[in-house]
Amino acid sequence: MVIAVPVASMSETLRVIAPLVRPGALVLDVGSVKVEPARLMRELLPPHVDIVATHPLFGPQSARHGLRGLKIALCPIRGDSHRRVAAFLQIALGLKVIETTPDAHDRDAALSQGLTHLIAKVLVKMEPLPDLITTRSFDLLYEAMEMVRHDPPELFDAIERLNPYALEVRRRFFDLASALDADLH
Amino acid sequence: MVIAVPVASMSETLRVIAPLVRPGALVLDVGSVKVEPARLMRELLPPHVDIVATHPLFGPQSARHGLRGLKIALCPIRGDSHRRVAAFLQIALGLKVIETTPDAHDRDAALSQGLTHLIAKVLVKMEPLPDLITTRSFDLLYEAMEMVRHDPPELFDAIERLNPYALEVRRRFFDLASALDADLH
Repeated sequence: MVIAVPVASMSETLRVIAPLVRPGALVLDVGSVKVEPARLMRELLPPHVDIVATHPLFGPQSARHGLRGLKIALCPIRGDSHRRVAAFLQIALGLKVIETTPDAHDRDAALSQGLTHLIAKVLVKMEPLPDLITTRSFDLLYEAMEMVRHDPPELFDAIERLNPYALEVRRRFFDLASALDADLH
Repeated sequence: MVIAVPVASMSETLRVIAPLVRPGALVLDVGSVKVEPARLMRELLPPHVDIVATHPLFGPQSARHGLRGLKIALCPIRGDSHRRVAAFLQIALGLKVIETTPDAHDRDAALSQGLTHLIAKVLVKMEPLPDLITTRSFDLLYEAMEMVRHDPPELFDAIERLNPYALEVRRRFFDLASALDADLH
């Protein structure tokens, strides 16, 4: 069973399905953060089900030419089913499987996803942005912004609010930016 | 004559060459901002020389596979020589020539170059950044950072201090980012 709901609704969904899952079943989530979903699944699902937490590191934009070669983070939470899940993702779908822990995932994702979505959100608010007087590095930044601009607000919320490391990363980003800005005066 | 010195040293350089340039000569700069260099060249060079202000919108990283198709901003300042300069850049070098004014250039560059270099500088200070748990949009951001990280500090200074619109753009960026951050609490 794949739980594909916003992370903020996961607890409610798990409470509904917990009494229905059969012994030996596999429950898998696809949320953008992993510490909180892993904790909820471990806590709310009966001990007789296997649990695997995953995060496909792509979205509708980056996967529009197919899945092959894209990355997915995979955290074994309970049982051995993660082995066949990893094999399926790798062999059948051609994904690059990165086995990790919920904590290590959220630590890295706070930097990669957290910063990208924060910067993209601010850039969207600064539109109109130039389209002629641009450098290649700005074009890349713009492309990154285009990739996430249509993501649902629940995704931004999960990335920034439900990742336990996101706040600390934002603090560091703002502090470093302010220091740099102060140096320029 | 091509003036290829940091924008901050341009005034000094122009004072040295002003008495040496022959009537009918063409003086051209390649600085990353255009309002200030254009003003200095108009003010310090004798009336008998033609002046063209340019900004190649690429650097060692983006031009490492050749110049063809890359962009250059070109501002006619004095005389008609800008026509043959544009033709040369377009036909001989294969560049895409964007004719503009120093003011329009700096307005757009404050957003494109100013924001990119500011964000890249902060990202460099946040290293080590993740290399496995990354999305495609973060990879693009990282690539943008890599493109400008080895630029000399004088370039960053020119972009952020000598562009008359850069401060206002930084203010907007920080205000929007703070508002977004406050919404997340």
